[in-house]
Amino acid sequence: MTDLLKRDLQLIAAGVDLFAEAAAGQAARVTRIDWSPPLAGTEADLATVLADPRRADANAEAVRRVQAVRALLVDVLPAGEVLGLGPRTMLHAGPPIDWVRASGPLRGALMGAAAFEGLVADPQDAVGPLERGEITLDPCHHHSAVGPMAGVITRSMWVFVLEDPATGRRAYCSLNEGLGKVLRYGAYSDDVIERLRWMSSVLGPILQAGVRRNGPVDVTAILAQMVQMGDEAHNRNRAGTLMLLRELLPAMIESGFPASDVAEAARFVGGNDHFFLNLAMPACKLALDAARDIPGSTMVVAMARNGTDFGIQVSGTGDAWFTGAAQVPDGLYLGDFGPDDANPDIGDSAITETIGLGGFAMAAAPAIVRFVGGTVADALANTRRMYEITLAEHATFAVPVLDFRGTPLGIDVTKVLRTGILPQINTGMAGKVAGTGQVGAGLVTPPLDIFPKALRALAAAAAA
Amino acid sequence: MTDLLKRDLQLIAAGVDLFAEAAAGQAARVTRIDWSPPLAGTEADLATVLADPRRADANAEAVRRVQAVRALLVDVLPAGEVLGLGPRTMLHAGPPIDWVRASGPLRGALMGAAAFEGLVADPQDAVGPLERGEITLDPCHHHSAVGPMAGVITRSMWVFVLEDPATGRRAYCSLNEGLGKVLRYGAYSDDVIERLRWMSSVLGPILQAGVRRNGPVDVTAILAQMVQMGDEAHNRNRAGTLMLLRELLPAMIESGFPASDVAEAARFVGGNDHFFLNLAMPACKLALDAARDIPGSTMVVAMARNGTDFGIQVSGTGDAWFTGAAQVPDGLYLGDFGPDDANPDIGDSAITETIGLGGFAMAAAPAIVRFVGGTVADALANTRRMYEITLAEHATFAVPVLDFRGTPLGIDVTKVLRTGILPQINTGMAGKVAGTGQVGAGLVTPPLDIFPKALRALAAAAAA
Repeated sequence: MTDLLKRDLQLIAAGVDLFAEAAAGQAARVTRIDWSPPLAGTEADLATVLADPRRADANAEAVRRVQAVRALLVDVLPAGEVLGLGPRTMLHAGPPIDWVRASGPLRGALMGAAAFEGLVADPQDAVGPLERGEITLDPCHHHSAVGPMAGVITRSMWVFVLEDPATGRRAYCSLNEGLGKVLRYGAYSDDVIERLRWMSSVLGPILQAGVRRNGPVDVTAILAQMVQMGDEAHNRNRAGTLMLLRELLPAMIESGFPASDVAEAARFVGGNDHFFLNLAMPACKLALDAARDIPGSTMVVAMARNGTDFGIQVSGTGDAWFTGAAQVPDGLYLGDFGPDDANPDIGDSAITETIGLGGFAMAAAPAIVRFVGGTVADALANTRRMYEITLAEHATFAVPVLDFRGTPLGIDVTKVLRTGILPQINTGMAGKVAGTGQVGAGLVTPPLDIFPKALRALAAAAAA
Repeated sequence: MTDLLKRDLQLIAAGVDLFAEAAAGQAARVTRIDWSPPLAGTEADLATVLADPRRADANAEAVRRVQAVRALLVDVLPAGEVLGLGPRTMLHAGPPIDWVRASGPLRGALMGAAAFEGLVADPQDAVGPLERGEITLDPCHHHSAVGPMAGVITRSMWVFVLEDPATGRRAYCSLNEGLGKVLRYGAYSDDVIERLRWMSSVLGPILQAGVRRNGPVDVTAILAQMVQMGDEAHNRNRAGTLMLLRELLPAMIESGFPASDVAEAARFVGGNDHFFLNLAMPACKLALDAARDIPGSTMVVAMARNGTDFGIQVSGTGDAWFTGAAQVPDGLYLGDFGPDDANPDIGDSAITETIGLGGFAMAAAPAIVRFVGGTVADALANTRRMYEITLAEHATFAVPVLDFRGTPLGIDVTKVLRTGILPQINTGMAGKVAGTGQVGAGLVTPPLDIFPKALRALAAAAAA
């Protein structure tokens, strides 16, 4: 101690300002670092998981596998055919849920889907069968699929089929209906059902013909270009949608379908800046699925919401869901809608954030603040903050304005709990009353309490 | 003087550091401002022009007129038909020039155009008639037209017809051929001529049918969206090209042309990220032409290069060109090409910078540095620096990453001379040997000496 006081004193102050200032006032050299204690109650599990000798290599392998995936759009097919869905099975977004706990927009989408499938004449007639469990609900994620918002997929809906050529693994997603009054936001009026019928009878077959004639479309490559063109691939998919059209339209034109149908399909896709979301999502799903089930990995491989629960899955803990209450986003509202109209967070679309796009890539898409709220400075800060809780920077998705730095890749459960920083999601908002449709778009985070649950399971797996 | 020394001294130091530091060292309050003297020899003319009582209102009117223009693509037609070009007249980029002073790429393009028009069997055979003045050369700008690079327009080439609905005024531009070995970069090989024939026989008519069936395309609105999508509308026109395709393709599909031709046209346009440049340019031309001939206005209404001379026109000085030697850009080269292969700056495309896009809007398009060189920080700094020499900020063209600040609008001759800051242009580079084609892309400025010439004419007009 005597010796210590004789030497040139160098202090590192971790968050204790009073001490740092007192020492600095006495001309001591003080290096201040940004530090805060981990979430109370997580210390022991954190120590266990951080000490797991498999962790570093497992996470490096998870990151490597995600980036090795190339997502190609290889076909467009009815969900019944490619996912083997029976007439009374409905897939939905988020972790598992039943009718009783389902929120308004999910209920509305299920009711509309029942009418679309011809199970009932009127969407209201579906409430009984759904209450009685005569229609089976199952998460999209359990079928290598993802769905935005309510995410309801039934057998007659057409889905994009994405494939990783190196492994042959596949992921699926429904076709995007546009904004406003649409099924995925819980609307089920006649025009919603009518649009779905046209999508299955005209749009799906024309897209299929286009993809088959054109050959596979490299969705990963389009994602890489999008982040250079102001898209973050969750709530801005403008450039992506345009690039998809550019690639597929010539083949669609030559497909032999009537010119009027091809033109209508082109107008529908071109008129919906969000169309590409339903390709971005399965591309992210395909990449993240490659990182599942790596013992010791603390990387999140799915974030998904069913409108009631927010759930995550983690590489090192298999198919377990860690769930908590979905939050209501804070954002901008359409027309006369306000915060009281908004349902809690819903949809599988947070798979984009799980890979480091969406809210994580807002620096690449500053114009997004006009859609989800906040300032341009917030958008840049959001991306910078996400580097604090991620394992790597994406080698392909580069943000020009950050000097082509890669997007923050691979949410680490331990980093979330060490920093207290929650993943930043930007999302659409559904009306909480079934049948309403979209009411706005905004920013949201997962509930904090799901991360200690995941950590506990990781700790148990580490100790095992 | 005695009184001055008794009072609390406040100094403003304008660039004289030694004095500022000495005063600050004596505890005087020093405010440092960034100031440098105007270019030597311009002081008297500057004083005259800055004192012109018409100047402020004239410049405000010039800015107002530019922003009042809405550029609609209303038709696509052969240049002979719409511009009244005879068989032996060739339009070219930049200020007036004759064959003797013409650079390699302009010569190459003129030779190729002669073959394309059937005036000669082989491009080499055109040298004699061009030398003897048997073919008339005239600037595009003298015909309400603009052309990128060599900018050669002849009667059989099809042109975009843009119109301002409020005034009926029009501007014209050729169709973009793509990059590499193309006529506008001075190449004239068989495949170049063959492509031009296809453009006149297939592409032009299909685009015409698309525009006529679809109705006018709002090019100004697309420009506004482009700058939110990583384009600066000179060397990045990706999003613009895609939005044009989105708007016109449905009508092209329904036009009755064979599906194979429509598909080929869609592939040609979609495969050329620069296609929209030839719509951005006449949109800028149309807007800036509205600001011509305002007595007392010091705003630049055209910057254009013919490969030998760089010329500007100024609102307050009518149709006079103020010219100096075009500079060789500094940038990135294709393949094995290097600085020795590059021709001096060429093309009417600097009309984009004249309105505050292109090099002025690089902050909106940081990914451009991968094409023209420099760093992302340079791109942001270029835009910020251009506010120093411009009159206003564009009300419609907003740069998201600069918190939606409008692009710098209206180059003021007096501000250029007061600050010594030259307009920043980013541009393609043509090979200096006729027939070569594109060799790279880079950054360039006008020669400084053209601004004192413009100022002298403004001073003469002010004194008159």
